[in-house]
Amino acid sequence: MDCQSGASGVNGLIPILTRHRKVEEKEMESFPVLKEKTLKESLFQQRNLNVAAISTIHPRASEVSGEDVPDGCFPSSSKDSDEEESSEKVGNSIFYVDSQQESPSDENRGQLNMLSAAYESLDYDTCVNAAWLDEERTKGYTFVVKKDVARWLVVLVTAVLTALVGCCIDITIESLSKFKYTWLKTYTDYGVEHGVLIIPYLLWVALNIGPTLVAGYLGSYVEPVAAGSGIPQVKCYLNGVKVPRVVRIKTLVSKAVGVTMSVLGGLAVGKEGPMIHSGAVIAAGVSQGKTTSFKYDFGIFEYFREDHEKRDFVSAGAAAGVAAAFGAPVGGVLFSLEEGASFWNQALTWRVFFGAMMSAFTLNLVLSTYNGVPGKLTYNGLLNFGKFEDLTYEIWEFIPFLLMGVMGGLLGALYNFINFKLTQLRMRYITRPWQKVAEAILVASTTASVAFLMIYGLHDCRKIEDEASRSDRYPIQMYCNDGEESAVAAIWFQTPEKSVRSLFHDPSKSFEWLTLSVFFGCYFLLACWTYGLGIPSGLFIPTLLCGAAWGRLTGKLMTLLFPGQSWLNEGKYALVGAGAMLGGVVRMTISLTVILMECVGNITFGLPLMIVLMVAKWVGDFFNEGLYDIHIQMQGVPIMAWDAPPLSNNIYASEVLNRPVTTLRTVEKVSRIVEILKSCTYNGFPVVDSIPTEEEARNFKSYGTLRGLILRSQLTVLLKHKVFNENAHVWESSKVDIRLFRLSYPRYFTLQEVDLTEEDLECTIDLRPFHNPSPYSVVSCTPLPRMFNLFRALGLRHLVVVNDSREVVGMVTRKDLVKYRVWKHRGQMGLEELVIYDNVA
Amino acid sequence: MDCQSGASGVNGLIPILTRHRKVEEKEMESFPVLKEKTLKESLFQQRNLNVAAISTIHPRASEVSGEDVPDGCFPSSSKDSDEEESSEKVGNSIFYVDSQQESPSDENRGQLNMLSAAYESLDYDTCVNAAWLDEERTKGYTFVVKKDVARWLVVLVTAVLTALVGCCIDITIESLSKFKYTWLKTYTDYGVEHGVLIIPYLLWVALNIGPTLVAGYLGSYVEPVAAGSGIPQVKCYLNGVKVPRVVRIKTLVSKAVGVTMSVLGGLAVGKEGPMIHSGAVIAAGVSQGKTTSFKYDFGIFEYFREDHEKRDFVSAGAAAGVAAAFGAPVGGVLFSLEEGASFWNQALTWRVFFGAMMSAFTLNLVLSTYNGVPGKLTYNGLLNFGKFEDLTYEIWEFIPFLLMGVMGGLLGALYNFINFKLTQLRMRYITRPWQKVAEAILVASTTASVAFLMIYGLHDCRKIEDEASRSDRYPIQMYCNDGEESAVAAIWFQTPEKSVRSLFHDPSKSFEWLTLSVFFGCYFLLACWTYGLGIPSGLFIPTLLCGAAWGRLTGKLMTLLFPGQSWLNEGKYALVGAGAMLGGVVRMTISLTVILMECVGNITFGLPLMIVLMVAKWVGDFFNEGLYDIHIQMQGVPIMAWDAPPLSNNIYASEVLNRPVTTLRTVEKVSRIVEILKSCTYNGFPVVDSIPTEEEARNFKSYGTLRGLILRSQLTVLLKHKVFNENAHVWESSKVDIRLFRLSYPRYFTLQEVDLTEEDLECTIDLRPFHNPSPYSVVSCTPLPRMFNLFRALGLRHLVVVNDSREVVGMVTRKDLVKYRVWKHRGQMGLEELVIYDNVA
Repeated sequence: MDCQSGASGVNGLIPILTRHRKVEEKEMESFPVLKEKTLKESLFQQRNLNVAAISTIHPRASEVSGEDVPDGCFPSSSKDSDEEESSEKVGNSIFYVDSQQESPSDENRGQLNMLSAAYESLDYDTCVNAAWLDEERTKGYTFVVKKDVARWLVVLVTAVLTALVGCCIDITIESLSKFKYTWLKTYTDYGVEHGVLIIPYLLWVALNIGPTLVAGYLGSYVEPVAAGSGIPQVKCYLNGVKVPRVVRIKTLVSKAVGVTMSVLGGLAVGKEGPMIHSGAVIAAGVSQGKTTSFKYDFGIFEYFREDHEKRDFVSAGAAAGVAAAFGAPVGGVLFSLEEGASFWNQALTWRVFFGAMMSAFTLNLVLSTYNGVPGKLTYNGLLNFGKFEDLTYEIWEFIPFLLMGVMGGLLGALYNFINFKLTQLRMRYITRPWQKVAEAILVASTTASVAFLMIYGLHDCRKIEDEASRSDRYPIQMYCNDGEESAVAAIWFQTPEKSVRSLFHDPSKSFEWLTLSVFFGCYFLLACWTYGLGIPSGLFIPTLLCGAAWGRLTGKLMTLLFPGQSWLNEGKYALVGAGAMLGGVVRMTISLTVILMECVGNITFGLPLMIVLMVAKWVGDFFNEGLYDIHIQMQGVPIMAWDAPPLSNNIYASEVLNRPVTTLRTVEKVSRIVEILKSCTYNGFPVVDSIPTEEEARNFKSYGTLRGLILRSQLTVLLKHKVFNENAHVWESSKVDIRLFRLSYPRYFTLQEVDLTEEDLECTIDLRPFHNPSPYSVVSCTPLPRMFNLFRALGLRHLVVVNDSREVVGMVTRKDLVKYRVWKHRGQMGLEELVIYDNVA
Repeated sequence: MDCQSGASGVNGLIPILTRHRKVEEKEMESFPVLKEKTLKESLFQQRNLNVAAISTIHPRASEVSGEDVPDGCFPSSSKDSDEEESSEKVGNSIFYVDSQQESPSDENRGQLNMLSAAYESLDYDTCVNAAWLDEERTKGYTFVVKKDVARWLVVLVTAVLTALVGCCIDITIESLSKFKYTWLKTYTDYGVEHGVLIIPYLLWVALNIGPTLVAGYLGSYVEPVAAGSGIPQVKCYLNGVKVPRVVRIKTLVSKAVGVTMSVLGGLAVGKEGPMIHSGAVIAAGVSQGKTTSFKYDFGIFEYFREDHEKRDFVSAGAAAGVAAAFGAPVGGVLFSLEEGASFWNQALTWRVFFGAMMSAFTLNLVLSTYNGVPGKLTYNGLLNFGKFEDLTYEIWEFIPFLLMGVMGGLLGALYNFINFKLTQLRMRYITRPWQKVAEAILVASTTASVAFLMIYGLHDCRKIEDEASRSDRYPIQMYCNDGEESAVAAIWFQTPEKSVRSLFHDPSKSFEWLTLSVFFGCYFLLACWTYGLGIPSGLFIPTLLCGAAWGRLTGKLMTLLFPGQSWLNEGKYALVGAGAMLGGVVRMTISLTVILMECVGNITFGLPLMIVLMVAKWVGDFFNEGLYDIHIQMQGVPIMAWDAPPLSNNIYASEVLNRPVTTLRTVEKVSRIVEILKSCTYNGFPVVDSIPTEEEARNFKSYGTLRGLILRSQLTVLLKHKVFNENAHVWESSKVDIRLFRLSYPRYFTLQEVDLTEEDLECTIDLRPFHNPSPYSVVSCTPLPRMFNLFRALGLRHLVVVNDSREVVGMVTRKDLVKYRVWKHRGQMGLEELVIYDNVA
């Protein structure tokens, strides 16, 4: 342990470099006799001392410093009944799984400084055991080539299916909303004529509530994980967190149908986020060659049934989803990069790119046919927000652009703050499904009411444009003169996506100051309220719409200040505003820039967009996190940041490790394995030569010499198939190989499904052909960032901490590292230690 | 060691899964008594047996299987004189440093299956030692914030400087070539009139040879690393290989001036590659806050003086270079990603993006001013290849596009093959600087001759276009009618970049069939010959030009087949051809697609471009590697692939490790350190508790219990500053901290510079405050891919192999892993083991 000080051990010989190390040296010498808790405390205090003396420490950090360290194994007697359930739910949480403190109190729900122990990690580190090597040996290079071909095939199928799902959503929304608004228009015209505006109003409310009910039912009762945008979930999945049910067919159906209904319900939602999620689900489904929802196994792509392969396909699926949602293939690749790039490599990039490309191609092919111009892929109508031709700008316009960037950042931060507070309330008080549906209905009727009031109250008339563009417009005359329409109704009587298009491309002076201001105010609040409801709902479009509204206002201001300039164009400012707002809310930069560029088919305007997005991000980051990250943090998902927290090199493995460690012998009795699986919630068990007695373990703080690492899932498969030494004659003839483990992926057996006789319990299992014989391990003086890099770069789930003679002294999992989080707001910076609850939701 | 088989050790108890493991088990039991060489051989043969039985093994692999394993330490007596030189040159090569076999024979030079031991690795893994922690403790969060701000600042300055260098190159080329072609035109017109064509011919040859002489002098005498495109060098650097002198100011000057001269010399070269390299050099220079070339230290950015930080800046610089070269900021980011993404993260992406953006902005600002439209950043002339307005395509045009992709792949593979053979000859026979200059002059005069012959021999006349576009054109009448010009001369009388523009945008029927065919043939061969000369020369433009030529031919063919179609456009096919050709030669996809999209300011045409590039890559990959990779392989650079070779899980650490290992004690005598540094070429030394005797080491194959890892560079700094225990009173009062090590970065002291007295040699050094106390280590049964992933993801330079009790048994370096390379051509696939030579060049 003397490595912590570097200089200790040769006392008297070595001059100490600084005062700090002297303090450490003294403390470290007494290390072995300190009790665990005391040691943890003393180390933490010492760190606080060192760091706090010279910088700010976040006040929250101290709250948890003296936390008790409970054992991850419960006495099996008290836990017999619900053990399986909890082991399924709790996953690899080893630390802080204290039944006394299962979840936060109501007032604490929805805080940002919590981690939920309910999230398991994915296993991106392939377990190269003897069984695996065996397959490699027998199959040879033809298998490698076959796998490679299959990968491209899976990506192709995923891309085409994603695009088709996207087309279905697009076309359904378009045709049904046509029906809805035509009907509404008829009744509104009738209502205005006859002075009974209550009829169209009630109709509108009803037409909003109907679809919202369906969306709410799907998102609250059928599949709660399908609610929301889906991007945070995909982000967590790519990061390595197992979000339950996130990539199932049921989720896909709920999401796709639900988002169609949400948009039809007139809510302030977009379909883009859910389409990205859909792409991810499709990729996961296709790559596995089986569906667990329908319990059907196609018997193909078995070799892709591991977390690592699946994850690669999901990132390709997400990119295909972006390509299908925005028609932006390059943006899709960049989105995958920006959100989940930790395991990136060139071969994968190409496949992702290919998927995004084929998705955009399929989408354009289908939609061009639907629009009556089959095969015309350059058709302008395929661009989500319409093409900006010849968008020029002057160099000094960077000044208003920069100011708009600042504005976007400020508004984005405000948006995030309001939504954070609302979501907090929601997590505390709106917890039952019926409450969620009720809230969604409330929002839907409020949206209709606000819209109706605006149309009724604001007198903003404009000439009806030429007939050519009328097919998807429903001009409402209201109290305007003949040949004129209400500009307010023109914004509201269409889907939000079309409204963005109107604000971008309608000629100057299409909208009055008041109209835009009121619309912005209302829509901003509505959008804030809507995101986080129990319905599938995208965030991009409503944010863009808010931004386009105030952007257009800025455009009007510019026209006022510099009248008669040819390059002035309200639409251009609407685009900049939309970009700024989106950048301020979600805080992505490079992928959003490219997506916007691809959406408006203009590349020369990329530079101002980039600058605006970056400024908006900087300004927003000064106050809070991006909205997706806020939601992820509120859910307590142990997501890994890109880098280890700064100044965390003085947190050592010895501080973050979990012990005691439950180890298994290389040849272990079945009864002991069963006992351990029943009583522990651990997911990974170090395999050791021989297990020290309890007293030895306590004295020497070691749990045997490390031989390998075996997972809970592997153990259950071995038990299920009774791969015992004693009945080797039974299974020796049949195939006991890696396929056995793959076939039960991803839902391995629970102990209940394993049927063991008394005789079986007396048998032994040899774990060596199945364990990972070379798990990554570190010594206890390894600083946190070095462990963090291992986890981040290699996608680890367990890291074994060993002492100088390679004896196991502890285990480190994702949560042990993630719980140290850096915060950086309002010009300050510090380290906080998160509280781990059993379940935060 | 029993982990290799997984099942051995409990003999009789465990049924073996397959026949293979049984074989292994037997062999592994006898492991400890086998001699080293025999073990290696037997393992290799066993692997061959296992794999070869079921798949193809590359014949070359067996050539090296029985290679002798020389010790990395020479007896100091025989090596006293030139030791420093060789340690500087040979670097961290531990293996195969056999003076008997220093370099390949002449006939073997330029093979693809060699590695050069002369390349050192960079150290991307930060050594978190006590001295480092000390700084972290004293500086606190303000330091973190300061570093962060400094990073953005460095990127900004880099971007602006890169853009300015780009502008200088652009403007110099433009003004001087104006001068050149005006002069040439005058004399050609005179020559045609008076029938003395020899005068303009000689003038042309002279005007080509003049600048080429300068470029050749710079690229062959002044700074050989400045020759070529620079992209392979940057790629290697980002990959983690120390390419000597690649990021020095001298290189920058040679490169920038040299490429200007190369282009002016009329050679088939572009300025883009060198501009990317320039960006990388500028980033390295700015971030270090000092120049070693001018021996001046600004005393700023000291904290960036380590390989890891420097590398991040270099990747930003490369992106800024792409942005400056092509005006393609997004393409620049993707280029950095595609070429060096192994250590990517989001924060870095944003800085890279910011740099690329600011670089494009600065470039456009300066160039718009130069072009007389100050501040008009949407000016069309800023796009390298001119804007394609309204580029539409029909769905069925994908068929010719796909065929063109195949064509591009085939031509690209041919190009690469010819260039490979030429480069091989060049490496064998053109080794002296004067020969290189002579060859460059030969190419320059041949280019002039070919051009002149074409203009003279081909009669292709066309009307002179309107006056407006004449400023950068030099219409030559030759034997055409009045008011007409020679179309052949129109291609040749401008820089290659302008020629690409002409082929893209000149109206249909501007060029005859014969003109284009002859031009393509000649230019293809000239470009093949030119790349690899001892001059700075970009590859992109000549390749695009070749592609544009045959693309335009295809366009003419299409017009012939489908006459009178409005969407037919020769320029469009020229663009597709250019993309296909470039994709076929360099084999990048996503970054090239985006770069081309940004260069022609058109986004709707992205989809066909992507498809063409991807097909070209696939077809090309069937035959050989991309040209950059071929050149990297010929230089024997140990570049790491993206993934470990498939089916390499049965190669274990015990096979690839190097031993004996030279270890140091935690407190070591100065005389021993000096002795070791003198006699060994190793760069990393494990620090152990106590060193076993030679006999012990031989018997137990272990070299002491691992405590840490110290680098040669750190040892020399300690020696230079005499940080000895015995004179602690001297240095204790002064600062001995991490800055000491940074100040001598990157060129640490050699032993000659260290002045030690007899007394000093008797002193001891405590290595513990300075060594890395938690180096990454693996056990000897770790499969190759797991070590590969560690190296790839964490940027390691040394990996310590330990046994089950954490005693050092060997060391693994980059070359030990890289020497196993997979090849995949003509439908076959296999593993080859490269030969490591001391120096291949």
